[in-house]
Amino acid sequence: MTPEFRRDPLHNTWVVFAPERQRRPQDYAAATLAPTQLDPFAEGNERFTPPEVYAARKEKTKPNEPGWRVRVVPNRYPALRIEGQLEARPEGLYDRMTGIGAHEVIIETPDTKTALEDLTISGVAEVLASYRERLLDLDKDPRFHHLYVFKNFGPTAGASLAHAHSQLVALPLVPTLVEAKLNRAREYFAARQRSLFSDILHTERAQGIRMVAENDGYALFCPYASRFPFEMAIFPRRHHPDFVSCSPTELYDLAEVLRFALQRLNAVLEKPGYNLLLHTAPLKRPLNERFASAKHDYCWHLEIVPRFQSLAGFEIGLGAYINTVFPEEAARFLRGEVRP
Amino acid sequence: MTPEFRRDPLHNTWVVFAPERQRRPQDYAAATLAPTQLDPFAEGNERFTPPEVYAARKEKTKPNEPGWRVRVVPNRYPALRIEGQLEARPEGLYDRMTGIGAHEVIIETPDTKTALEDLTISGVAEVLASYRERLLDLDKDPRFHHLYVFKNFGPTAGASLAHAHSQLVALPLVPTLVEAKLNRAREYFAARQRSLFSDILHTERAQGIRMVAENDGYALFCPYASRFPFEMAIFPRRHHPDFVSCSPTELYDLAEVLRFALQRLNAVLEKPGYNLLLHTAPLKRPLNERFASAKHDYCWHLEIVPRFQSLAGFEIGLGAYINTVFPEEAARFLRGEVRP
Repeated sequence: MTPEFRRDPLHNTWVVFAPERQRRPQDYAAATLAPTQLDPFAEGNERFTPPEVYAARKEKTKPNEPGWRVRVVPNRYPALRIEGQLEARPEGLYDRMTGIGAHEVIIETPDTKTALEDLTISGVAEVLASYRERLLDLDKDPRFHHLYVFKNFGPTAGASLAHAHSQLVALPLVPTLVEAKLNRAREYFAARQRSLFSDILHTERAQGIRMVAENDGYALFCPYASRFPFEMAIFPRRHHPDFVSCSPTELYDLAEVLRFALQRLNAVLEKPGYNLLLHTAPLKRPLNERFASAKHDYCWHLEIVPRFQSLAGFEIGLGAYINTVFPEEAARFLRGEVRP
Repeated sequence: MTPEFRRDPLHNTWVVFAPERQRRPQDYAAATLAPTQLDPFAEGNERFTPPEVYAARKEKTKPNEPGWRVRVVPNRYPALRIEGQLEARPEGLYDRMTGIGAHEVIIETPDTKTALEDLTISGVAEVLASYRERLLDLDKDPRFHHLYVFKNFGPTAGASLAHAHSQLVALPLVPTLVEAKLNRAREYFAARQRSLFSDILHTERAQGIRMVAENDGYALFCPYASRFPFEMAIFPRRHHPDFVSCSPTELYDLAEVLRFALQRLNAVLEKPGYNLLLHTAPLKRPLNERFASAKHDYCWHLEIVPRFQSLAGFEIGLGAYINTVFPEEAARFLRGEVRP
């Protein structure tokens, strides 16, 4: 296959597909985190984390004691502080704001060695429901403008602890990539009276070559301009800007697709590091009025990006990516048509 | 120090400064590449690379034989192909282009164990002059619209070979981050009739707290919204959009500042992985007419970004960064006022 450039209108980022580089042996070097001596996220070690802000627990068990299935705690080394006044001001040429925000950890299982995809579908749905609970709660804080849930698995994906967990950040601003995505979605809608997300979903389901799986609620596919080898996206079939709009049935369907995606990734690539990125619309705030049209043009979605080599000077400096695997090929592996 | 958000008008990217996270021991874990069994970039091994396209050599030595000080060869595993017609076309919703381009390796020294900063100032200047030669040559190819030189040192920065080298890519497009930077520079100039680069340079020299060093030609400083701990930028004092405009004296002065920056980085942080990013204006092509104002508003510059942990779901999904070291603190270490 010859190399090519690709770009999709959602990310608006050029990706170089360079299949010849795939021969380099270090491209798929595995790396795992050794379990820590003391696992602060394990059942029985609740005292080693800050007090929980949410948990799915057995009846009659007490907060910060054993008996939970999913547990959410503030990050012990938070990037942001929850206490304080938000102050935004210029500093000469530059912009500055106090580092107010929330940074929480969603502990996905009480067991040290269980991975997210090892849980039952209901178990994964309970993790997703805990995202939803925390998003709904943080939505009440008027200082925040954007909420974001992500998961780092493995050291290549930036994880520092082996125990299965996700993270949630609440930010007093709308980050650059989110704003750019919202703007593109709005421009696309303004020009066509159709959602970019619906059009991508329609295209992928109609073409089928990049589809991996689907169920009543969701489509799982490898994006046309995948930035990373074996990158996948999950788009809901019901268009809505906000993840918290999901019903329990929709969370169950999402859990089924997500669990399948991660299990297939493990089967094809031997437990690679990956990031899970949950993109949901910025909160409805006066400051966010510029995103008011998001109801029809923006749709929440989930991205699964396997991480092998470190991002290098090419990616950091240009915002472009070099990918060694075409998404059509990745999809054939992930569907199980081709064996690794 | 309390956490804060910062943004500069050049990158337009929010950075969270989170000094509390610095306590995590893995933040500065060192990682080095073992020298390969056979070093294809060493003097005497010229037959293991594609034929050279440029070299700085001793008189009376022949191409692809020993006797060189700097040698430029096509990348053996190129992300892009130099041969072929450039075709750009839509694919339904998406954009696609043939993967035409150049991908070259600048071998900075014939010796396996010498680092760029171990060379003399004249030696580093000769490396920079080889960048300039290759940029001037590739400038002639009408298929290319943007040229970019970068260096990956160490595995955390995406390097796969230990022998000191940089890379050059010639692209048939202007990448997203470059276009966005040019647009911001133009808007800034249109509003003020002053260059954003001149204003940043003036601010940093006047304030001094983020300055690391300067000489007749250049200022070396830690950017206000540094994305990475100990990030540095080198801005030329003579405003020009294009790196190739540099005279031999200017290359010598640049070599002095760059070598100093890397030596200080090594002294403070024990040879961390880093990327070197050389940003120069897109080529003057009819397709690039939208960048026509670049002469006054855009200025070439160099970025030095140390790389420790992998970028995680926060950075990948949001285009925002978490940094554990304020640039004012990094500058004090790099100036040598504080010992590590």
